[in-house]
Amino acid sequence: MKARITHTECPIARTLQSLGAWWSLLILRDAFQGATRFDHFQKSLGIAPNILSQRLSQLTDAGLFERRLYSERPPRYEYVLTTQGRDFFPIVVAVFAWGNKHLFPEGQAVQLANARSKRPVDPVLIDAASRKPILPTEVVLVPGPNARPRMRKHLAALKPLANAD
Amino acid sequence: MKARITHTECPIARTLQSLGAWWSLLILRDAFQGATRFDHFQKSLGIAPNILSQRLSQLTDAGLFERRLYSERPPRYEYVLTTQGRDFFPIVVAVFAWGNKHLFPEGQAVQLANARSKRPVDPVLIDAASRKPILPTEVVLVPGPNARPRMRKHLAALKPLANAD
Repeated sequence: MKARITHTECPIARTLQSLGAWWSLLILRDAFQGATRFDHFQKSLGIAPNILSQRLSQLTDAGLFERRLYSERPPRYEYVLTTQGRDFFPIVVAVFAWGNKHLFPEGQAVQLANARSKRPVDPVLIDAASRKPILPTEVVLVPGPNARPRMRKHLAALKPLANAD
Repeated sequence: MKARITHTECPIARTLQSLGAWWSLLILRDAFQGATRFDHFQKSLGIAPNILSQRLSQLTDAGLFERRLYSERPPRYEYVLTTQGRDFFPIVVAVFAWGNKHLFPEGQAVQLANARSKRPVDPVLIDAASRKPILPTEVVLVPGPNARPRMRKHLAALKPLANAD
């Protein structure tokens, strides 16, 4: 893909670039289930060790994992979620909820539930200030503090998200 | 990747498979900004037409887009988000928010704002029933109605998400 503002200055595009591969999301999924060690990820994901190693390095370089030595002989590292990595949780949950809602016509195999009540949770994305759901019809993209003229022009030409109706 | 329950019965893995490629998220991003036509996606994404065409077909087959004829001579189709496609919005917003928070040290170029007040929104994922944020420390995975013995065993062996701390 060529360098264009829809790639270089879009937080979604930059996030995808930082993850490297879609399925890195499965590494994060496993991390949120307590996986920290190579063997655990390897067993869950079943991918070639060199590929897994690349992905863990990429996520570490991107600031989502911190690498910690847990054995000196032989030297072994574990991958611990950073604050930035833990902030990925809503994305993991939102993807989980969407998949469970739309892709399990045969019935759901697994559900996300409240730890105490064990009742399934029903994730809704709301705005912290207004406490209202964030709907495509009620939000717009606006220039940020670092918007350059090209971005301002791009955003001014956009139809409101509402028009996606 | 081999067939294992962490792939075949996980709603996250199934979602990734259904999207095909990570950057299909950028197609959905553009759709939420009102893009419906091939040329519009093409201009925004700058990818080879045959690849874009494949991705649009995949998203259509996966039920996120409906293909509609908008010109008969020559025959031209537009891609309109279905309900299932529109349900992807929280994921798009959650990825947007994460990227904007963590990947723009130079300052944000674009922000998501309330359509009326134009104030930036601050997305939080809550549980519809309890209205409380969904945190890794407060949820667990439980067997769904269609959980088979292998999944039950897998889930019973999991540490609670809380232990990711």
